[in-house]
Amino acid sequence: MSKKVWIVMGSDSDLPQMINTIRILEDFSIPYEITIASAHRSTDFVLSKTKSLEEEGFALVIAAAGLAAHLPGVVAASTNLPVIGIPLESGPLKGQDALHSIVQMPSGVPVATVAINGTKNAALLAVQILSLSNGNLAKKFSQYKELMKEEVLAKNQRLQELGAEGYLAEKGLKKS
Amino acid sequence: MSKKVWIVMGSDSDLPQMINTIRILEDFSIPYEITIASAHRSTDFVLSKTKSLEEEGFALVIAAAGLAAHLPGVVAASTNLPVIGIPLESGPLKGQDALHSIVQMPSGVPVATVAINGTKNAALLAVQILSLSNGNLAKKFSQYKELMKEEVLAKNQRLQELGAEGYLAEKGLKKS
Amino acid sequence: MSKKVWIVMGSDSDLPQMINTIRILEDFSIPYEITIASAHRSTDFVLSKTKSLEEEGFALVIAAAGLAAHLPGVVAASTNLPVIGIPLESGPLKGQDALHSIVQMPSGVPVATVAINGTKNAALLAVQILSLSNGNLAKKFSQYKELMKEEVLAKNQRLQELGAEGYLAEKGLKKS
Amino acid sequence: MSKKVWIVMGSDSDLPQMINTIRILEDFSIPYEITIASAHRSTDFVLSKTKSLEEEGFALVIAAAGLAAHLPGVVAASTNLPVIGIPLESGPLKGQDALHSIVQMPSGVPVATVAINGTKNAALLAVQILSLSNGNLAKKFSQYKELMKEEVLAKNQRLQELGAEGYLAEKGLKKS
Amino acid sequence: MSKKVWIVMGSDSDLPQMINTIRILEDFSIPYEITIASAHRSTDFVLSKTKSLEEEGFALVIAAAGLAAHLPGVVAASTNLPVIGIPLESGPLKGQDALHSIVQMPSGVPVATVAINGTKNAALLAVQILSLSNGNLAKKFSQYKELMKEEVLAKNQRLQELGAEGYLAEKGLKKS
Amino acid sequence: MSKKVWIVMGSDSDLPQMINTIRILEDFSIPYEITIASAHRSTDFVLSKTKSLEEEGFALVIAAAGLAAHLPGVVAASTNLPVIGIPLESGPLKGQDALHSIVQMPSGVPVATVAINGTKNAALLAVQILSLSNGNLAKKFSQYKELMKEEVLAKNQRLQELGAEGYLAEKGLKKS
Amino acid sequence: MSKKVWIVMGSDSDLPQMINTIRILEDFSIPYEITIASAHRSTDFVLSKTKSLEEEGFALVIAAAGLAAHLPGVVAASTNLPVIGIPLESGPLKGQDALHSIVQMPSGVPVATVAINGTKNAALLAVQILSLSNGNLAKKFSQYKELMKEEVLAKNQRLQELGAEGYLAEKGLKKS
Amino acid sequence: MSKKVWIVMGSDSDLPQMINTIRILEDFSIPYEITIASAHRSTDFVLSKTKSLEEEGFALVIAAAGLAAHLPGVVAASTNLPVIGIPLESGPLKGQDALHSIVQMPSGVPVATVAINGTKNAALLAVQILSLSNGNLAKKFSQYKELMKEEVLAKNQRLQELGAEGYLAEKGLKKS
Repeated sequence: MSKKVWIVMGSDSDLPQMINTIRILEDFSIPYEITIASAHRSTDFVLSKTKSLEEEGFALVIAAAGLAAHLPGVVAASTNLPVIGIPLESGPLKGQDALHSIVQMPSGVPVATVAINGTKNAALLAVQILSLSNGNLAKKFSQYKELMKEEVLAKNQRLQELGAEGYLAEKGLKKS
Repeated sequence: MSKKVWIVMGSDSDLPQMINTIRILEDFSIPYEITIASAHRSTDFVLSKTKSLEEEGFALVIAAAGLAAHLPGVVAASTNLPVIGIPLESGPLKGQDALHSIVQMPSGVPVATVAINGTKNAALLAVQILSLSNGNLAKKFSQYKELMKEEVLAKNQRLQELGAEGYLAEKGLKKS
Repeated sequence: MSKKVWIVMGSDSDLPQMINTIRILEDFSIPYEITIASAHRSTDFVLSKTKSLEEEGFALVIAAAGLAAHLPGVVAASTNLPVIGIPLESGPLKGQDALHSIVQMPSGVPVATVAINGTKNAALLAVQILSLSNGNLAKKFSQYKELMKEEVLAKNQRLQELGAEGYLAEKGLKKS
Repeated sequence: MSKKVWIVMGSDSDLPQMINTIRILEDFSIPYEITIASAHRSTDFVLSKTKSLEEEGFALVIAAAGLAAHLPGVVAASTNLPVIGIPLESGPLKGQDALHSIVQMPSGVPVATVAINGTKNAALLAVQILSLSNGNLAKKFSQYKELMKEEVLAKNQRLQELGAEGYLAEKGLKKS
Repeated sequence: MSKKVWIVMGSDSDLPQMINTIRILEDFSIPYEITIASAHRSTDFVLSKTKSLEEEGFALVIAAAGLAAHLPGVVAASTNLPVIGIPLESGPLKGQDALHSIVQMPSGVPVATVAINGTKNAALLAVQILSLSNGNLAKKFSQYKELMKEEVLAKNQRLQELGAEGYLAEKGLKKS
Repeated sequence: MSKKVWIVMGSDSDLPQMINTIRILEDFSIPYEITIASAHRSTDFVLSKTKSLEEEGFALVIAAAGLAAHLPGVVAASTNLPVIGIPLESGPLKGQDALHSIVQMPSGVPVATVAINGTKNAALLAVQILSLSNGNLAKKFSQYKELMKEEVLAKNQRLQELGAEGYLAEKGLKKS
Repeated sequence: MSKKVWIVMGSDSDLPQMINTIRILEDFSIPYEITIASAHRSTDFVLSKTKSLEEEGFALVIAAAGLAAHLPGVVAASTNLPVIGIPLESGPLKGQDALHSIVQMPSGVPVATVAINGTKNAALLAVQILSLSNGNLAKKFSQYKELMKEEVLAKNQRLQELGAEGYLAEKGLKKS
Repeated sequence: MSKKVWIVMGSDSDLPQMINTIRILEDFSIPYEITIASAHRSTDFVLSKTKSLEEEGFALVIAAAGLAAHLPGVVAASTNLPVIGIPLESGPLKGQDALHSIVQMPSGVPVATVAINGTKNAALLAVQILSLSNGNLAKKFSQYKELMKEEVLAKNQRLQELGAEGYLAEKGLKKS
């Protein structure tokens, strides 16, 4: 069985988005624990949990936050485990503030940053990292990528059969 | 005598800039303590110091950092004292990353943010805040503002006497 | 009793947002006065009010504006009291113009800037500053922070009990 | 003779750039007065001068500032005369802060904004505006535009004669 | 009677916004002509009209465009009259592209730029410029500014009477 | 008959927008093939198709993508044919990420970039390029431009007849 | 022999950069004409030249400009030939203004935009377009791409032989 | 012994920066291979190498590029191994283009992005990932973090002994 992933988010308002992360971990049968914990409102809780991660059998952290998104960096500072950071779109700067706050970490304490709202990719990156020491998982990921490829090819195949107008009609997509 | 200010910066490479902050505090005879402490490299030290600030007689924090500047927010999370944050220009984003990381704090934990590289203004804001309960300091600040005004008026006066070309010559300013 | 806070905003269209500021001041029993006054349309009124703030027993200003947001800086120029500035999201630049206009104040005249739309944090910063000379207020703020922490911990506790899907269902949050 | 232009800048460090503005006004024999006056450090002086502009025979203002550039807007608020604003490049945001602070004025109080560092164009815009009621000036401006055109045509003519390499050699321009 | 203003916009989709410009000119009884003309689709028409402006008795141009907004600059290139440029919010860059395309004009050909969507301010700037040689108009503009001031003061007066909650209720403004 | 254009897009969610490209090609009777193919999910398919383009009689590529839009650049790397790139607005950065990913190609491998969402202009650029060796197409494009001009002139004509209010009413446009 | 390319730039200060464009055209033996012509200072000259391009045997335009870079768009408006636009880095906005002014062209008048300072790629794009009807040129371009590939492979080969430190030493590159 | 890391960069001009990455890998005795390979100039080489990575015993990729930085994404598309992306500062947009091109990867193909020029952090992230299945490495990384902490604490200690002025003098840092 794979090692555990700790998913932590700054607010329960982030949970609807983070469901995407959870689902992929579940699809890959990766055990995880999910926590709401603010770097600013419940710092001590974040740090005490973070420091016990290795002992509790976690291998990886996925941390998501918006605005001045300090959570991924604060967690990364207190653990030796790799931390994947997700900047969330929130407020008028649309996640550009969160991107800067997460990706621009100073030398010594990296955060592996994915796209703004990159909730799925954070999970897939976790899968890739855990696959390094889990051949079974590696195989599943390889199948997942193959599937993605086939889906695109199938969509294209259908487009060739129906033409652009027909495809839009079948999918119920509106012309813009 | 005024209460103490804690000045904390993320790296010793910030010190040359922070001298501006120190000098103003010294001009106003405000006692201060200055610390190099990284939110990411020495988190526990930052937090333990932060938690003892009130007990040690500090009234105010000035925290400066560049890049994904978490220091001011992390300090603000662990103290009830007001925290003034200075985003420092550092790296290719020129302090815009630091500005976002400091000013965009989520509800509940404010950081009083000054301009990028606003090292003097951070000190002056500290002076203004401490003046609220220190009539002597308030008086000095009032004189400081008066002085600033007189300097501008004097420069203008000199410009009227010399004309633009003469003024530039006297000041040794190059035409652009 | 605490000293008074002057809340000033550039337009009555800012009032719905500024209610958040008012509520927190009221929760902390901080007396305040609220004014609509434009730095550009009613400059003299702004300045004459600003100059009488100390005499009228005010200790602090909270000034909010959008677009080319000059109000906080103009007020800061004419009083020795600390000025907290709130950049408001307004128009196509989404408050980035207001942020630049408020935070980038030149040396000598600081404005303590909070996040774009940071109406709650402006009030909390005021609470922190006033707490420096008001032990009662300091105690209330300490309780407020404790409460925030407990709320996050309780949310997390509930998440552990219900799981992510259950939590979303209970809170009526839609999956994104 | 033309009406007078008031040139005001926030700091004497802006003077080297503003020489460009002065020279064009002098080339067009437009009388001007030049003042160093900070919107934040010497607000009362700015306002009292601004309010007497019409009486003193001024027709137009050119106001230049960097950073949170409030000077043009503050002047525009207190006079009925048209105000031309020049955002100056200063500090790490390279004048984008000043551009936002000047051009994004709210409804009711316009500032006619030129490019960042647009010191020449501010003067030329003043010339164009004053030309509306001064046929002589209008004629000079027409000649100025003609001259600009001829200079470009002459440069192109020379380029045709020498070829690109020859032109660069003659002008002493380095290949990049 | 005042001289005429030429209002030109790049597309008829800009007309709903430009109504704000028209109304202010009408309020000040300034004669105007309004034209739809694209710098890119009907260049020759734009230029031939522009070159006859002075002869036709126009004193001023207001040119509005979105995206790569060349219209104001192209008009400015072909007339000696002052040109006021309005960057319009349009497309995914929200008018930042139009602002850059209008305000960053090179030396020699200024465009007096107002805020993104600054349709009212463009008209008011025109009023200010035309007031320089029209005492009647100057008087009206002075009254307009006075009125604006009184409106703000009246709103504030009402706020003092009703309090924030009462004011919002009376105005039907929703709390955010 | 004209040579063929290959239209490729990163996802079927782009198809509603790309219909605009298709329609213009059809209006000009330019044969085309349309493909859904992701640079990241189906790289090999993209490359193998790209390498056979010349053999299959294609003359030109139009490639559209959002976010980290690598598709146009990846195609351009593997063909000698000119590639027109369309950055699509997608996600919180509104196509600015796609614009950077497409237009900032390094020396050696250009992509002819059009505006964000510039689906029509991509097709028209293709028409212009194909017109270089197709006199018939050149003639049609010339007529198209003429038609665009006449449409603008006709709109303006109608505006002159109806006035602004009347025009808005006839077109059913709302005043903003 | 290939058809001619017209290279036009807004100012002779752009010439040092544009030498890169010229050299590539010369390497491919593509005849060209180079012109300095400002969209704003010498509009009529630009337009009259542009309108005679087809008659003079030109097939393509490369237009370069900085700041509010209208030249490429203005040329594109008056010719049916494809126009390649180069945004030049100039002034405090570093070419972002020029990029917006060139790439964000409205529907109907595309400009094929390359990277900021993309002087080489503009020429290579011209080569690609002209290759469509010139087999000889197509062959040369194919060789050029092959050569680029070989250069990269050779550099990599050398790196494998020398190691990173040795490679840097041989190339005289400084470690950063 | 640890598994191998493949370091790939787009150009040999990136090598001076990438030395920082190499040194850290060497400090941790992690075997690596370093390659210069352009996603655009030598695509086939990149892909064929990428596809053989697992077979050749690589566990991880570090890919660095500037401008429209496609290399990390293109590699990530063709391998199941985790890919760490470094956006390099290059050209007028200072790495913001590269950041967008690397971090904003679409769903399905993540790139673990570090800061602009984050050459050290890319290596440290690799160390953290490899540590998951290499206890020895994990121990070394733990010591590395400890050392970083001690360095900061030592600097602070020295600052306490010397004071700010003394510290600057000893370090030879200039006051700004």
